[in-house]
Amino acid sequence: MDKKPSNFSQSIEQWQAERKELNELTLEAANLEIKRFFSLDSQTYRPGALDAKTKELLGLVASTVLRCDDCVLYHTIRCHDEGVKKDEFAEAMTVGLVVGGSIVIPHLRRAMARWQELDA
Amino acid sequence: MDKKPSNFSQSIEQWQAERKELNELTLEAANLEIKRFFSLDSQTYRPGALDAKTKELLGLVASTVLRCDDCVLYHTIRCHDEGVKKDEFAEAMTVGLVVGGSIVIPHLRRAMARWQELDA
Amino acid sequence: MDKKPSNFSQSIEQWQAERKELNELTLEAANLEIKRFFSLDSQTYRPGALDAKTKELLGLVASTVLRCDDCVLYHTIRCHDEGVKKDEFAEAMTVGLVVGGSIVIPHLRRAMARWQELDA
Amino acid sequence: MDKKPSNFSQSIEQWQAERKELNELTLEAANLEIKRFFSLDSQTYRPGALDAKTKELLGLVASTVLRCDDCVLYHTIRCHDEGVKKDEFAEAMTVGLVVGGSIVIPHLRRAMARWQELDA
Amino acid sequence: MDKKPSNFSQSIEQWQAERKELNELTLEAANLEIKRFFSLDSQTYRPGALDAKTKELLGLVASTVLRCDDCVLYHTIRCHDEGVKKDEFAEAMTVGLVVGGSIVIPHLRRAMARWQELDA
Amino acid sequence: MDKKPSNFSQSIEQWQAERKELNELTLEAANLEIKRFFSLDSQTYRPGALDAKTKELLGLVASTVLRCDDCVLYHTIRCHDEGVKKDEFAEAMTVGLVVGGSIVIPHLRRAMARWQELDA
Repeated sequence: MDKKPSNFSQSIEQWQAERKELNELTLEAANLEIKRFFSLDSQTYRPGALDAKTKELLGLVASTVLRCDDCVLYHTIRCHDEGVKKDEFAEAMTVGLVVGGSIVIPHLRRAMARWQELDA
Repeated sequence: MDKKPSNFSQSIEQWQAERKELNELTLEAANLEIKRFFSLDSQTYRPGALDAKTKELLGLVASTVLRCDDCVLYHTIRCHDEGVKKDEFAEAMTVGLVVGGSIVIPHLRRAMARWQELDA
Repeated sequence: MDKKPSNFSQSIEQWQAERKELNELTLEAANLEIKRFFSLDSQTYRPGALDAKTKELLGLVASTVLRCDDCVLYHTIRCHDEGVKKDEFAEAMTVGLVVGGSIVIPHLRRAMARWQELDA
Repeated sequence: MDKKPSNFSQSIEQWQAERKELNELTLEAANLEIKRFFSLDSQTYRPGALDAKTKELLGLVASTVLRCDDCVLYHTIRCHDEGVKKDEFAEAMTVGLVVGGSIVIPHLRRAMARWQELDA
Repeated sequence: MDKKPSNFSQSIEQWQAERKELNELTLEAANLEIKRFFSLDSQTYRPGALDAKTKELLGLVASTVLRCDDCVLYHTIRCHDEGVKKDEFAEAMTVGLVVGGSIVIPHLRRAMARWQELDA
Repeated sequence: MDKKPSNFSQSIEQWQAERKELNELTLEAANLEIKRFFSLDSQTYRPGALDAKTKELLGLVASTVLRCDDCVLYHTIRCHDEGVKKDEFAEAMTVGLVVGGSIVIPHLRRAMARWQELDA
């Protein structure tokens, strides 16, 4: 649903549309190495010995401690898609918060708001 | 006063209102550990052997070298509340700049503009 | 040209105008050390044993791995001014991507879009 | 077993002994907030909606992208204790590598060597 | 006193001697910009509107959240020289811990051990 | 030559031998994605629109601002191999220092000492 929460300049759908557009632009202008990196990035999250749900949680926590809103949002959506439950999401964000410190809080707040938007 | 400077999409008051809203959303959805972290974060800046003004300056510099605009703005407001003077603020930001490097400059610029907004 | 691409809230020219305004505000409020840092920052990119083009590429990659959009855009413009070609730009961004990881991708995407804006 | 591999100045057991000693020194000198943080850090990894094994994998990946050898080793040992298998460990380290970039490689190498030491 | 604690490969005095040697080597090989940076770095901590003790605490916290052991040790010694007391040191380290997260703990532990070495 | 400078626990040759050993261990235990990443990392520095010398300088500066001693040393050796001169090396390190800040200085010092070791 294309609902724009008051805290964000874009709804999740608008954000996804922009990400898709920028991805296409990038891959069009990309050299072989950039294309290979994007391909490797996709492979990294495919189910293997660890399932996709676990891998997306790993990506979420890595993105949280590195404080990248776009990456946190991407993995938040993927976690939600993979059936992560609300309390599991909060526990993963807790690891990110405790490892990364209070500097992570602005990103945690936005992630919690985005999770609510997904659950609506 | 709710003045919106031309450089920012939000005035300080609008930013504070949004922060308050996101904090409430987060604490509502939070588990015990996240609540404890937020509580510990508050305790950290209470006056002790070091006074609150010094602690807010420490938080300001930590936020500057870690390049978090929301955290820098929060501590800029707190420093101003605690009676930090303009030249003291500039000296603390200098430590942040010299330790953190030119990569900090976009954050320094915005902090200086926000300080002016507070002094107005 | 003052074209505002759909992905950005500001065109390059608007961004440059805002940067100029914030720089002036900062240098007006600055103490001697901040002024010296800004001066040193300028000197760093002047041609020497390495030419300006190479130095701007170094600044671009440093900004990419440290994930600062403002710094990446600044050096993207400077690289373009110094005659960096599209494939050279992509190869420098590749170093940034492989060294810095997928967490750099949101910044890479925006840099590629900005490069297109410069070439138009 | 107290085997010292040629690549490291300490065996895992020596490292654990030193860590224990420094932890005791720190908690003895600690104020209430530091003690609370250490306590919160422990709680963060207890089984909840996510099991301990998953939480340790999250801690491992967070530590990898933030490039802290001591933290990586701590979580490597905990992952091994929690029954993480070799291929699961490699897949978690892959997320760390792809998200964090080649700058993570020195830490990845040491983690793989330590994993071998644990399996021996 | 040249006491080497069991946790460290160097006593503080040995560390200071090595730092001095490497500084001299660096400044001998340095170009004008590197020399200017080192000079600016010194100026940054001289007493001004903020006293030297406060500035060293700022440098300590910046170094802690950025997790640089050499920088933390340098500022720990300077703080001790400037009359920072044990509980003030612990409160500054608390800001560093809470802002920077558990990833800071290995550095916190070593800083507490070094403080003890200074007090001995 | 296998000369061990007083500042380092390993000579460059010893460091290279250990790196080689750890690389082999890692690639032996690696899954397909880790192997692909290592391969992509190599490709990234091959001459293309930018020559190898420029690419190694880019890798050097990226490693400096991200403060990874192993990565800085690797690219220092590669820069030396590619014919980078002493003043060019110093200028690249200057970009790293000014962008990354004083927190980079311990790494700069060690890099300058290693450069001397290579020139001997």
